[in-house]
Formats: sequence, structure tokens, C-alpha cells
Amino acid sequence: MTMELPSLQDLEDAYKRVKPLVHRTPVLTCKAIDDIAGCEIYFKCENFQKVGAFKFRGGSNTLLSLTDEEKQNGVATHSSGNHAQAVALAAKMQNIPAYIVMPSTAPSVKKNAVKGYGAEVIECEPTLQAREETLEKVIADTGATMVHPYNDFRIVLGQATAAVELFEDVAQLDYLLTPVGGGGLLSGSALAAHYLSPETKVVAGEPEGADDAYKSFQTGELHPSVNPKSIADGLLTSLGEKPFSIIKELVEDIITVSEEEIKSAMKLVWERMKIVIEPSSAVPVAALLKNKSRFNQKKVAIIISGGNVDLEKISFS
Amino acid sequence: MTMELPSLQDLEDAYKRVKPLVHRTPVLTCKAIDDIAGCEIYFKCENFQKVGAFKFRGGSNTLLSLTDEEKQNGVATHSSGNHAQAVALAAKMQNIPAYIVMPSTAPSVKKNAVKGYGAEVIECEPTLQAREETLEKVIADTGATMVHPYNDFRIVLGQATAAVELFEDVAQLDYLLTPVGGGGLLSGSALAAHYLSPETKVVAGEPEGADDAYKSFQTGELHPSVNPKSIADGLLTSLGEKPFSIIKELVEDIITVSEEEIKSAMKLVWERMKIVIEPSSAVPVAALLKNKSRFNQKKVAIIISGGNVDLEKISFS
Repeated sequence: MTMELPSLQDLEDAYKRVKPLVHRTPVLTCKAIDDIAGCEIYFKCENFQKVGAFKFRGGSNTLLSLTDEEKQNGVATHSSGNHAQAVALAAKMQNIPAYIVMPSTAPSVKKNAVKGYGAEVIECEPTLQAREETLEKVIADTGATMVHPYNDFRIVLGQATAAVELFEDVAQLDYLLTPVGGGGLLSGSALAAHYLSPETKVVAGEPEGADDAYKSFQTGELHPSVNPKSIADGLLTSLGEKPFSIIKELVEDIITVSEEEIKSAMKLVWERMKIVIEPSSAVPVAALLKNKSRFNQKKVAIIISGGNVDLEKISFS
Repeated sequence: MTMELPSLQDLEDAYKRVKPLVHRTPVLTCKAIDDIAGCEIYFKCENFQKVGAFKFRGGSNTLLSLTDEEKQNGVATHSSGNHAQAVALAAKMQNIPAYIVMPSTAPSVKKNAVKGYGAEVIECEPTLQAREETLEKVIADTGATMVHPYNDFRIVLGQATAAVELFEDVAQLDYLLTPVGGGGLLSGSALAAHYLSPETKVVAGEPEGADDAYKSFQTGELHPSVNPKSIADGLLTSLGEKPFSIIKELVEDIITVSEEEIKSAMKLVWERMKIVIEPSSAVPVAALLKNKSRFNQKKVAIIISGGNVDLEKISFS
């Protein structure tokens, strides 16, 4: 089965749609890290995006794409992470009711953040089955539209807008690196490069302990994520079929990195750049540092996917 | 004894001098913190300055003010903190030899950073007396010029340039808050406000455990810092006589804060703004949050003094 890729027009429409809502995040550079890496790095800082992550782009684009009737019935999703907050805030900004299914074990700070955006939180047992069943029930009861975190081209196109801004700000990039979890950011970035900066090769970083995208990319067949384990908690989900259809076509490579490499890259960025990035964001940084010769003297951009870290749990010692 | 304050011309000269060398650091805002504080806050982010702290401004201005003969003989200082790196890098950029006396107990990462800028590190016993004696010997041997970390109007004028940039970027500020340790940043900021934004009141935050500036300000007499203790390790030094002469005249108030208030303010900034700030930088943030009614609805700037944190020692749990 082949899927038709979203068009340049689709991408331009998405960018026009989300532009008034999203922060245009800064592109930062750091001489100290350039010296260590041996290349010229541009960090597109989605940790400064609303809700602290790129996910707000996909949520916004999807909700802006709904019909008036769909908007009235609201939106629903299950997530304990950045997607929950992204949908909740995007819904609030567009006056759309939002129902967020969250595992009862989710930290209360996360539940409160979602409630703070005016969304209704529905708690369930902390299993994928319970989450999916609860979500189905909510949708049956309310008529709300399901907003998938990544397996939806509206989400992909929303996430792509980070790279659209990046290509406006930095010309002639040799490489663009992103993390890969469900694949929304990676496929969106690859799509944006394909249309707007075809000379830029798109490469992903993925944790060794959650390497389903790597395996899928190598074999050309979608591999499910089995017992993934990584400090990069945003990347534990299985690669989605729709993002994969784009990734297969347009991505150059996926590089896996160890937990130690992720932690060390995260520390380097906190220390040298004085910005808080979440472990998932450190994954492409680690992928670059692991392959210095490949990127030597190149002009490389990295999308820093987010900055939501539980500071009480983090330890560098 | 009264001291003559540096003039507007002195300030403009210092700004012209350092402008090509320093980063023009960004002014960031954060809606979430504004909502918590009940006012409009502009964060002047010197954590993004070269060497990760405003100290690079004072070091640069002082070194740029030296005669050619002084430059040939080099510069010397004792410091285990940001001033050491600031002098080392400013010296390197101007091809001036630098001798930095550091206590043998200083973390090797700090010694290496200073050596990395090409400065000569001279180790000594970790007492103020040993530091001063060693520095005197170095100066006697080399003819180097002593660069004091704060008790020097060239340093004060250099630090003042952060506020100069701030006033260019943000008009009609009601308040400007800074931390106070030796007083270089506070007095420089007050001087800049005096000449460039006289409607802006300058207020400092100081740790309760190192409140010599508070006491000096209250009594009008310089109080030495006796056994200061605070997580805000940049603020343990005694207020200098020269900065105090300006602070007495031009500062509105000094507010003391507890260790808990400092830690909580630091966590808030890391979490909500996704930037790494050092404990000293959190002190004026804590002072603001402790006095919400005083700053209610006002337009307030805070100078984030630096972002050099030992991540292996920090804990939020």
C-alpha cells in the first residue's frame, strides 16, 4: 500500500494556520558545543514553545482543521505527556471542549497543568488497554473528535512548521536532526526539508532501548515498540504508520544512542547553553556527538523538541 | 568622604568599549511567571553572556581601559568563580597575559575552564589571606595589574552595560531588580537607571545568610560580611566601598530572602522558562515573589546574573 504524501500546499496551509498561535521559537548557537562537535550547529528551541514542546504545533493545526460541528463536540485524547497539554491549551485557545484521558499514576503536576488549561481530565488504570477503552467511552459519550498524538497528517503537518521556521531562519543546512518516537516531528521535518530545503538531509536520533523506528527503517516494515525503556520518556511510543510512510521515503538515516550518551548530551546542553532540555531532546545531540566525522565541518540543525523535565527526579551525579 | 560618581560620559564610553566584545543578551518574558507574580517581568538573561555571567562585561571594560604598557605586563586576580573566567576570557580576546589565583580546593572543572582560556592558574591555600598574599606575590613578580572583581569603577561601568542594553530594549520600566554581592552589578545598574531611565527604581535582592549589603544600606555604614552562608555562592563577598558609594545614593531598597525562597524561585525559572540560572540569579526573583503587592501590575526587569551551576551538586528533591 502506498500513501500519498501531504503536498507543499498542505504544508503552507498548516503554517498559515498555526502561525498566529505558536511562538516563533529562537534558533540558538553555542560556540563551545560547535568546538566539541567539530561542526556548525543551529538549535531550534521548541523547549521555548507554548506548553514547553513542539507538540503544541500539531495540536493547534489539528484543532484548527476541524469543522465547526466537530469543534462544538470537542476533542479527546489519551496522554500523560506533552501531547495532553498541547491539546488542552490548543483547545482552550480556540474555545473547544477537551477531554484528556490520563493514567491515575500520572504526576499530579501534569494533571493539574492540563486542568489548568480548562480541559476535563478522565483518569484510568495505567495500562494502554485501559487508556484506549476509556478514550473510546469518552468519545462515544461526547461525540468528541479523537486527536492522535502522531498518526495523523494534520499532526505531522503541524509539527513540520518548526522546520519551516528553521529553514526561513537558516539557509543551506547540510543536515537536520530530530528525535524520533511516534514519528510526527521526524516525518514533518522531513516533509518540510523535501519541499523547502531539498539539499538538507534529515537524520533522526533514537534511544537504543526504544529502537522500533530504527528497526522499521532498516527493514522497511513497521516494527512495534516492545518493552521500550529509556530516560527519553517522550520516545517510548511506537512509530506510527502514517509518519513511517513519509520517513521511509524522505529520511536519510536513524542513529541509535545509549542511555549514557543521552544523559551526557543533555548535561552538555544544560551546562554550556544554559537551557533546560528534556532527555528526548538530547537524543539527536547525542547522535551527532557519536558521529563527529560524519558531520565534520557541516552546517547542522537540531530540533530541541521540548523542555519538560521533572526537576525533582533528575540527577546528574 | 564623598566619592564622585562616574558620569554619563563614562558610562557611554564603557558601553562603546565593550559592545564589540560582549553578547547582546536577550530579554525574555514568561506569561506563567507573570501570572504568578502579578506583574510584567522582563528577564535580562546574562546567563547567556560569554562565560555564562555578566562578569564578562566588567572584566572586558577594565582590560580595555588599560594602557599598552599595562597590557604587556598582564592582569591578575584571585577568584574561584565567574570573575576568574571573565578576566581569563577578556584577556585572551585582547592578547593580554592573565594570572588567576585560585584556591587548591576549587573544582577542577573551574580551573580547567580558566586554563582553557589560556590564563595561568596559580593555586593557593583556600583562605582569603592565602589568596591575597599569593596574588600580591604574583603582582610583584610580573608587574601585572590587579583586576578587582567589584571595587573598581571600571568594573562597575562594565557591569552597568547590561542595564544600558535593557533600557534600550524595554522602555518605561517601573523597577529594575538585581542581586547584590560585592555590589558591582547593583551599583552599575543603578548608575545606568540614574542616567538613562530615571523613572526606574532599582531594588536588590540579597540572601538572609549574607546580608551585609542590607545592613550597610540600612545603617549607611559599610558592614563587612561575617561568616556568610547561602546557596547563592556568587553573593558571599563583602560589599565594596566604591559600589556602596553609588548604592547609598541611587538604590531604592534591598530585600533579603531565605534559602528556601531562593531555591523555590530558581526551580520556578528552570521549570517555566526552561533556562538554567544560578542560585544568585534567583535571589531577585525571590525578592519579587516575596513582595507581590509592592510590584503589583508594575513593569519590572530582573537581571539574571548568570547560569553557572554545578549540575552534579544541584538537587530539587
